[in-house]
Amino acid sequence: MNQPSISLSSPSTRGPAEHDIRDQIVAAANEHFSQYGYGKTTVSDLAKAIGFSKAYIYKFFDSKQAIGEAICSNCLGQIVAAVEKAVNAEAISPTERFRRLVKTVIATGVDLFFNERKLYDIAAFAAGEHWPSAQVYEAQIKRFIVDIVREGREVGEFERKTPLDETVEAIHLALRPFVNPLLLQHNLDLIEEAPMLTSNLILRSLMP
Amino acid sequence: MNQPSISLSSPSTRGPAEHDIRDQIVAAANEHFSQYGYGKTTVSDLAKAIGFSKAYIYKFFDSKQAIGEAICSNCLGQIVAAVEKAVNAEAISPTERFRRLVKTVIATGVDLFFNERKLYDIAAFAAGEHWPSAQVYEAQIKRFIVDIVREGREVGEFERKTPLDETVEAIHLALRPFVNPLLLQHNLDLIEEAPMLTSNLILRSLMP
Repeated sequence: MNQPSISLSSPSTRGPAEHDIRDQIVAAANEHFSQYGYGKTTVSDLAKAIGFSKAYIYKFFDSKQAIGEAICSNCLGQIVAAVEKAVNAEAISPTERFRRLVKTVIATGVDLFFNERKLYDIAAFAAGEHWPSAQVYEAQIKRFIVDIVREGREVGEFERKTPLDETVEAIHLALRPFVNPLLLQHNLDLIEEAPMLTSNLILRSLMP
Repeated sequence: MNQPSISLSSPSTRGPAEHDIRDQIVAAANEHFSQYGYGKTTVSDLAKAIGFSKAYIYKFFDSKQAIGEAICSNCLGQIVAAVEKAVNAEAISPTERFRRLVKTVIATGVDLFFNERKLYDIAAFAAGEHWPSAQVYEAQIKRFIVDIVREGREVGEFERKTPLDETVEAIHLALRPFVNPLLLQHNLDLIEEAPMLTSNLILRSLMP
C-alpha cells in the first residue's frame, strides 16, 4: 500500500494521526477541486494529483462525495462563522442583529461565489442534492433566526401573536434565495437592493 | 420557395394572412419542442418536422429564439390569465386577493412544470436569460401586486408609511422563488407550505 508522498505529509515517528491524514486529503482535494471542479474529477485523478494511492484515499473516505462533503462543510462553515461574528456583537438590538444576519449571509455567499467559484459549485450541488453538509448549514442559519426572533419577542421588539415556529419558518423561506447556494447564483443581479428590501419587509412583519 | 405543406395550412384563395402562418409555425414548434425540447432542436429540425422550408420559417421569425419567445409568451401568459381570473373576483378584500395571487402563481407554475415540462423548460431558460417574454411576465405580476397593495392602502387594510415602491419591490422579491420559473423548479419541495407561510409573512408586514 502506498504511503502519502513526502510533499504532503511529514509523519512523526508514531505516524500521523488519522484525522491529520483526513485533513491532508481534504486540503489537497480542496486545492484540486478549486482548480478543476468537483464534477469532472474522479478519485483516481485526485489520487494521482495529490500523490496518494486510490486505495489509501478510500481508507479514509468512502467515496468522492464524502470528500466533497468535508469540503462543503468547510465552505459553508465560513458563512456560518461570518454570521456568528456579525450577529454576536455585544449591545446591539435584535433588529440590528437580524439586519446583520441577512447582510452577512448574502455578502459571504457572494464573495465565495466570485472568489472560490469551483468550491461554491460544490456547495450549490450539495444544496441541490440535500447533502448532510447542506442540511447542517440550513439548520445553523435557522438557529440564528430562532435566537434573534426569540430575543426580539422577549424584549418586546417583535410581535408575539404568531407561533414562533411559523415566524421562523416563514423568515427562513424568505431568506432562502440568498441562504441557499444553488439559488443565490440566480439572484446575483439583486444583491445590491435585496438585503435592505428583504430585511425591511421581514422586520415590518415582526412589528408588535 | 416552398409553401407550407397541405397538412398544416388550408390557404384561402387570397393566401393565409401573415399572422395565421406565424400562429401555425408557433403551434407546430410548440408541439415539436414539447416532445423534443427547445435546446436540442434546430430550425432545420423544426422545418423538416412541420413541413415548411427553413427559408420560409425565417421569413416569419428571425431566429429560433424568436419562435421560443412566442411560445414562452403563451406559456407565461397562461399563468397571468389564471392569476387575473383568481384575483379579479368581485367582493373580495385586498388580503384575500393577495392570498389568491400567491396561491395561483404557485399552483399554475407547478402545474406547468409537471404537465408541460418541455415548455416549462423554455420558460425557465427565458427567465435565466432575461428574454423580453420573461420580463413582460415579471412586469405583469408586479402590476397585480401594485394594484392589490394600492387598494389595500385605500381601504385602510394595509399600512401606508412605507413608500409604495419599496413595499411592492420587496413583495415581488419575496415571491420571486415562486414567480420565476427558473427558481420555482428548485423550490418544488416547499410548495405545500410555502404559499401560506409566505402570504402570512407578507400580510403581517402590510398590517397598519
